[in-house]
Amino acid sequence: MRDFSDATRRLADLIVGFGANVQPGQIVAVTTSTGKEKLTREITRSAYEHGARWVDVQTYDPWVKRQRIALAPEDSLEFVPPWQLVRLEWLSAEGAARITLSGPSAPEALEGLDPTRAGRDVMPYLPNSGDVMNRRTTNWCVAPGPTVGWATAVYPELDPDTALERLWDAMIHICRLETDDPAGAWLERFASLTATAARLQERNFDAIHLHGPGTNLTVGLFRSSLWNAAGFTRADGLKHFPNIPSEEMFTTPDPARVDGYVSTTMPKELYGSIIDGVRLEFAQGRVTKVEADRGADALRAVIAKDEGASRLGELALVDGEGRIGPLETVFFDTLIDENAASHIALGTAYGFMVGDETERARANKSAVHVDLMVGSAALDVDGITEAGEHVPVLRNGGWQI
Amino acid sequence: MRDFSDATRRLADLIVGFGANVQPGQIVAVTTSTGKEKLTREITRSAYEHGARWVDVQTYDPWVKRQRIALAPEDSLEFVPPWQLVRLEWLSAEGAARITLSGPSAPEALEGLDPTRAGRDVMPYLPNSGDVMNRRTTNWCVAPGPTVGWATAVYPELDPDTALERLWDAMIHICRLETDDPAGAWLERFASLTATAARLQERNFDAIHLHGPGTNLTVGLFRSSLWNAAGFTRADGLKHFPNIPSEEMFTTPDPARVDGYVSTTMPKELYGSIIDGVRLEFAQGRVTKVEADRGADALRAVIAKDEGASRLGELALVDGEGRIGPLETVFFDTLIDENAASHIALGTAYGFMVGDETERARANKSAVHVDLMVGSAALDVDGITEAGEHVPVLRNGGWQI
Repeated sequence: MRDFSDATRRLADLIVGFGANVQPGQIVAVTTSTGKEKLTREITRSAYEHGARWVDVQTYDPWVKRQRIALAPEDSLEFVPPWQLVRLEWLSAEGAARITLSGPSAPEALEGLDPTRAGRDVMPYLPNSGDVMNRRTTNWCVAPGPTVGWATAVYPELDPDTALERLWDAMIHICRLETDDPAGAWLERFASLTATAARLQERNFDAIHLHGPGTNLTVGLFRSSLWNAAGFTRADGLKHFPNIPSEEMFTTPDPARVDGYVSTTMPKELYGSIIDGVRLEFAQGRVTKVEADRGADALRAVIAKDEGASRLGELALVDGEGRIGPLETVFFDTLIDENAASHIALGTAYGFMVGDETERARANKSAVHVDLMVGSAALDVDGITEAGEHVPVLRNGGWQI
Repeated sequence: MRDFSDATRRLADLIVGFGANVQPGQIVAVTTSTGKEKLTREITRSAYEHGARWVDVQTYDPWVKRQRIALAPEDSLEFVPPWQLVRLEWLSAEGAARITLSGPSAPEALEGLDPTRAGRDVMPYLPNSGDVMNRRTTNWCVAPGPTVGWATAVYPELDPDTALERLWDAMIHICRLETDDPAGAWLERFASLTATAARLQERNFDAIHLHGPGTNLTVGLFRSSLWNAAGFTRADGLKHFPNIPSEEMFTTPDPARVDGYVSTTMPKELYGSIIDGVRLEFAQGRVTKVEADRGADALRAVIAKDEGASRLGELALVDGEGRIGPLETVFFDTLIDENAASHIALGTAYGFMVGDETERARANKSAVHVDLMVGSAALDVDGITEAGEHVPVLRNGGWQI
């Protein structure tokens, strides 16, 4: 097994110094899982080196979650301890930095569980997570934390050590850690994404039309929907980059104006279940039919969670220029996979990405946010103008605008 | 490396079903450390099997703590996140069960740090920990969680695998897990301890006198000080056994009436520092002089924490009949070592172990509770009656009453 101490250190420094952009005197919350201890410790080190006042680490263990899903009383599965909400409100009030390590640390831990029970425990996502994000009070970053369990799920044909080496190599490539200056490499890529987002914004499309194999979906936008890429800005002006890696540009759709059908192009891990070959039908914004080759019940359970879970909260476009898509690998981690292909998300919207206050009030709200990858080179993306004109936006992974 | 899955499971069941005595419908808080994942998962399993509604696991990582002690701003080291206090108050209000795994999971993590900085971070002990305990609202249990790091500190001459096997064997013996019915074995031992405590109670001594090599200390008791062993009873009557193992009987002294000098008989880990060969002088209850062969600064830093940290909150007597003392091993874990030998504790008292309300208000209060082992076969323990008569209590480890 090769030594990834240096990569671990570089990734931690990128997450802390560039992604979350930790400031002197800040509280820094870290959400991590068992198996990611080394990266968590390096993040803690880097955060204190950047002047953090307190690094508040929370560790989730999927094997502990397994016991809950398998054994806890039926009526307790949606329970969230109230101190978790208090803690998140405190982080918001303190203007804290928040770092989350993604990637399923031990996917095998949730195998064979009842998917409808599993789908009812969505922690570490909290009922106030979307609300706090929309207040833009915290500078946050989600980034991958490789583990042997995750690696084995991605490369089942390899022995565990080789699989972990392969996953680390992929993460080093995807996160641009091999360069002398990863933050500089990201700034360059982000400048290009931001320029494209600005061109999309200029067009002010009334809707986006996705069409390709198994997909013919029209996603209505608000007049004041904003296109964003790469960076977020806190309400007080502090810049941060919420996802490392990020190859997408995204907007907040009108949850009442989504019609047609859409098919996913990649499998996905959903609260312990794998869902694959999903086909959704929409009418007037609402999901009216859910089919899937695998995991339909798990997805249906999540969609039934609340009204907003059956409507769209995000539309994101991904070109063919990123580093993830060309690997043609399913990472079973939304952070990575959603940056391989254009996607939609059911559930909570980025409300602040709607400029007009009245329209913003109509942005989708939910206790969940579920990204579904629907893009591929074969997916054509058009913008539809107010006048009804169809304008090519993406063809074969290349921008047409 | 032998497989300790069965011992892990049996220990978890003893902690949950007997020690904490988890009831159907309860919230169960678990405080654990990295390296104790297997036992933590078995405890979670057992808690849900006993009907727990939610198992709230908090994991501490000594390597994360190391970064704080090494790097955090000087004025931040005593900071405790407010949600921790909220969480503990919630556990109290809910009448939760609380389980803590003891034993330093990786003692090497805190090596070489500045002891005065290390002594300022006493988490997971919280400012309201003593208060919540004294309310008797929660049923709790502290029990050992063996790790390879801990094992290596206890048996430095052995290779890590052998050391861990040796530590597990010691814990199996000490926790009476080798019997068919560990809970039954404990009930038998506890019945004997409780009978002795009742005899001590009957004498209603005015003070206890400890005298032996390096020790000549008189510890005054309240008129209404209660002697207890083995079991606690919640305010609502639920019985639990706060320590597995437990070989001690203990009382709450008068913090204003402690005079003389006392020497420790075992080294101790104190917030990452080893303290050994401690000699304390007391006058009118207060520590007036601190000397130590090792770690004097660390101990002085803790004693300076608040007024109560320089006064006694506990006096405990341990006979020679227990299973820990005969092993003649220093475990560097207070839970185990304090049950090998008679001890005193600086800091927070068990207020509820003073019967009279006016006297109870005078029981010691502090943000810390530091046990110091002072007993040995060579320590004579006498009770002093109101009339000034000295009555032998312990001689050569055997009860004289």
